[in-house]
Amino acid sequence: MTKSTLQIARAAYEPKVPAALKGAVKAVDGAKTQSVADQSEIEKLFPNTYGMPVITFESASEKVETPAINAGVILSGGQAPGGHNVIVGLFDGLKAINKDSRLYGFLMGPGGLVDHNYMELTADIIDEYRNTGGFDMIGSGRTKLEETAQYDKGLEILKQLDIKALVIIGGDDSNTNACVLAEYYKANGSGVQVIGCPKTIDGDLKNEQIETSFGFDTACKVYSEVIGNIQRDCNSARKYWHFIKLMGRSASHIALECALQTQPNVCIISEEVEAKEQSLDDIIIQIATVVAKRAEQGNNFGTVLIPEGLIEFIPAMKRLIAELNDYLAHHEAEFKNIDKTEQRAYIISKLSKENADLYASLPEGVARQLTLDRDPHGNVQVSLIETEKLLAEMVSNRLAEWKAEGKYKGKFASLVHFFGYEGRCAAPSNYDADYCYSLGYTASCLIAAGKTGYMSSIRNTTAPASEWIAGGIPVTMMMNMEKRHGEMKPVIQKALVKLDGAPFKTFAANRDNWAFNTEYVYPGPIQYFGPTEVCDQTTKTLALEQAK
Amino acid sequence: MTKSTLQIARAAYEPKVPAALKGAVKAVDGAKTQSVADQSEIEKLFPNTYGMPVITFESASEKVETPAINAGVILSGGQAPGGHNVIVGLFDGLKAINKDSRLYGFLMGPGGLVDHNYMELTADIIDEYRNTGGFDMIGSGRTKLEETAQYDKGLEILKQLDIKALVIIGGDDSNTNACVLAEYYKANGSGVQVIGCPKTIDGDLKNEQIETSFGFDTACKVYSEVIGNIQRDCNSARKYWHFIKLMGRSASHIALECALQTQPNVCIISEEVEAKEQSLDDIIIQIATVVAKRAEQGNNFGTVLIPEGLIEFIPAMKRLIAELNDYLAHHEAEFKNIDKTEQRAYIISKLSKENADLYASLPEGVARQLTLDRDPHGNVQVSLIETEKLLAEMVSNRLAEWKAEGKYKGKFASLVHFFGYEGRCAAPSNYDADYCYSLGYTASCLIAAGKTGYMSSIRNTTAPASEWIAGGIPVTMMMNMEKRHGEMKPVIQKALVKLDGAPFKTFAANRDNWAFNTEYVYPGPIQYFGPTEVCDQTTKTLALEQAK
Repeated sequence: MTKSTLQIARAAYEPKVPAALKGAVKAVDGAKTQSVADQSEIEKLFPNTYGMPVITFESASEKVETPAINAGVILSGGQAPGGHNVIVGLFDGLKAINKDSRLYGFLMGPGGLVDHNYMELTADIIDEYRNTGGFDMIGSGRTKLEETAQYDKGLEILKQLDIKALVIIGGDDSNTNACVLAEYYKANGSGVQVIGCPKTIDGDLKNEQIETSFGFDTACKVYSEVIGNIQRDCNSARKYWHFIKLMGRSASHIALECALQTQPNVCIISEEVEAKEQSLDDIIIQIATVVAKRAEQGNNFGTVLIPEGLIEFIPAMKRLIAELNDYLAHHEAEFKNIDKTEQRAYIISKLSKENADLYASLPEGVARQLTLDRDPHGNVQVSLIETEKLLAEMVSNRLAEWKAEGKYKGKFASLVHFFGYEGRCAAPSNYDADYCYSLGYTASCLIAAGKTGYMSSIRNTTAPASEWIAGGIPVTMMMNMEKRHGEMKPVIQKALVKLDGAPFKTFAANRDNWAFNTEYVYPGPIQYFGPTEVCDQTTKTLALEQAK
Repeated sequence: MTKSTLQIARAAYEPKVPAALKGAVKAVDGAKTQSVADQSEIEKLFPNTYGMPVITFESASEKVETPAINAGVILSGGQAPGGHNVIVGLFDGLKAINKDSRLYGFLMGPGGLVDHNYMELTADIIDEYRNTGGFDMIGSGRTKLEETAQYDKGLEILKQLDIKALVIIGGDDSNTNACVLAEYYKANGSGVQVIGCPKTIDGDLKNEQIETSFGFDTACKVYSEVIGNIQRDCNSARKYWHFIKLMGRSASHIALECALQTQPNVCIISEEVEAKEQSLDDIIIQIATVVAKRAEQGNNFGTVLIPEGLIEFIPAMKRLIAELNDYLAHHEAEFKNIDKTEQRAYIISKLSKENADLYASLPEGVARQLTLDRDPHGNVQVSLIETEKLLAEMVSNRLAEWKAEGKYKGKFASLVHFFGYEGRCAAPSNYDADYCYSLGYTASCLIAAGKTGYMSSIRNTTAPASEWIAGGIPVTMMMNMEKRHGEMKPVIQKALVKLDGAPFKTFAANRDNWAFNTEYVYPGPIQYFGPTEVCDQTTKTLALEQAK
């Protein structure tokens, strides 16, 4: 592996950790807990792991001799910056417990456990990945651990390698499954502990106990760097509207955070669209109005941030897609026989009035995507829709109408961008490097304390790292029952953007100013070596949420 | 203007400058020069500015009292990182000559001179823009200064403001025009000096005298950062081929530099395609072969870098576009009357055999773009063609054929990206901050020395800044005669990628290794505060070109 000079310099960075983790550590139990909702059902499903106390780690006066521990680790789901540092922190923690401890990595996600694909992570390997981005040390995957057959198969290799505990690094679903696995291994007396670590760049795994999920900080900073650069270009050239789509299927945390960092002219928040039952037309008018007002001041340029999942949050679009899925499921063959040029008219003739009108208003390319590109279950693939192009084109059309009516006199030219893969594997910011390392180290402490069904937790992270609080949260505490594929399941609640939360309220209070006055901020690239106010700041979202 | 913490910290950075510029400065004349080609014609066109010596600035033993100088500055053409620092360096240099010197900025490009739109750039304004990206201090524009009426109109305001010298910051065309203006103002005895500064992020304004044009360093580092992040994701997820288009219409310097920094699996260099007279099919086979070979090793992922201008370098595509332009110019009305669904067949029936075959092989979307979206002159808008999608789709089709023939057994899924606007207005790297500031400061020295028709020049920039050599190059020295719009014109030769140059040869020697072994490098974001080997390295291109 050829390393860049930055990688070489960055390898020497020593992540900052909570003071309590620096020497001997003791676990302090808090009060017993209960789940956020559906307590009796959750308790019934998790008789062995329900109601456990929150754990806090504190400095112990002297180190207790502890035998060597073998542990396993799995990366689950999409990449997020800092994953390697969780593993590195876990490794260092295990070695601090006893130098003969061993760590095994299961390869390419949870499937590695089931299929017995693994490698021992030795000090040489670990040192290659300190403070690096990516999940390439052991790979990741999307296999879900949901079947007892998988658990039993996994147990074989865990027993064979004498693994006492398994750490699963993943999002809400992966952590839910980690808890199901913990319950299963506790119920069957196998004794293997299971610990989760909260990861999503989307930022939707957070709650009263988990301040943030790792990777969100770094990814948002990378996106904000390039958005800032585009805004500076926009403000220099003064002739384009940039429509910028940002990763985030189910929640708009990334778009909101990037808006707080860069102060664009428009940012759409899916959760607001849904709450206000806005139509696609409402959104087009909202954007076109800003374009027209800026044009009156001679400013025929601007920026619009769009969350990736927007389409699915527009109630009318959801209804259209549902009817399309339903209709096409029953008329697949008939539809396929229609000549391509007639398909649009055919669909319009078959839909209900409301949906037909909406479908007819869509640009041709998007309309085609909605009927042609369907997944193996026959459903419309919403993620393939180029929402940024859809909005740019529909805004352009609307402005042309307004121009014909004399209501708009500007020039409109648009450019589109989508940022996602640019941020998922960036080298972690100091915050994520520290936070991830601490999460991994804390996982080792939970293992040493004999815990299972816990998520590793680091709190108070807007303070300097020495004041961070390390501990463990029972996963059941974050659960409620939700319908998934027609069945009620215990799941960790996904955190959407709260419209009464400080980050959204700050955005809402400023957005008119940002829309009409050009108030762009240019955050620049992540810095690793400079002054602390440049290198160690948290996201705006976290700072606002934690502000007292 | 709300500033990010990085902007605030970065404002305090003091650009490093050549030792000779630190105190009193004297101009040392070299030998007389001649143009690179067409000497007699160039001399005839530039009787007053031809054959002047190369200037070098050296430390002088004592400072000469110099009267205050009023100067003007213009940003011409596309944004490039560091433009503000040229202006800042110019300002500081003028103030060092005499604290009563004044600097005026003409607004929104050369048009500001003609239309008398300007502002005085006071110390307060200048300080707001030290080490920042963008051209927003005074804006830029693409008006060409080519008519004597423009020159005369400009002279009015220059006289009115008592401006002794004008500095034009731009690319090859702008510097050519700067020299025409210098010649005109010298010939008419107005006495206004004109000095050029070499800017293009494309990197195509360089030659024996100009090592590099500013902005190229920063832009390539930003692109390489996000390419590296995508490669790390690619190597972690192991399931996508990323097709990444990079800015650079007429030369592939950016793609080549990014390839040297990140070591992708494939990088297409337009100049090589043209030299080898490769067809689109050749390129598709080249990429598909790498995909197939990697699939044999179980690696169904990879990265492909594509220069923006590729299509125009494929001889067969150039011929097709020429025939399309010609045919449609004469049959516009007839074509428009054809039903949309018949247009493709219609075009195929009208083209020569070779071009018809090529047109028929193109994916539908691209074929439509080639006939529908034409500019006001009726020409195909090559820049609108999504080359990255075109290649991804055609490679996919070819692999499907190979699969049917049993020659390929992998899985192919692609994602596309285009990076351009992300890098043009980034805050300058230390190199560009230093280089630009020095270029601007040197321009002030050329003004003080009474020079006109010179380009500001900083050489030896792979050495530490104190050893850089500041001077001036007569613009006529870089000129030759070329046909432009049917007329022979004096122009600065555009520097394309040299296939016998060290950067390309290094790439060519390594590309097979990079193709089949995964040798990705992850450069990470530009650093401003860290160790010098991280913060102050030049581009690979420059290092290889200057290596003895």
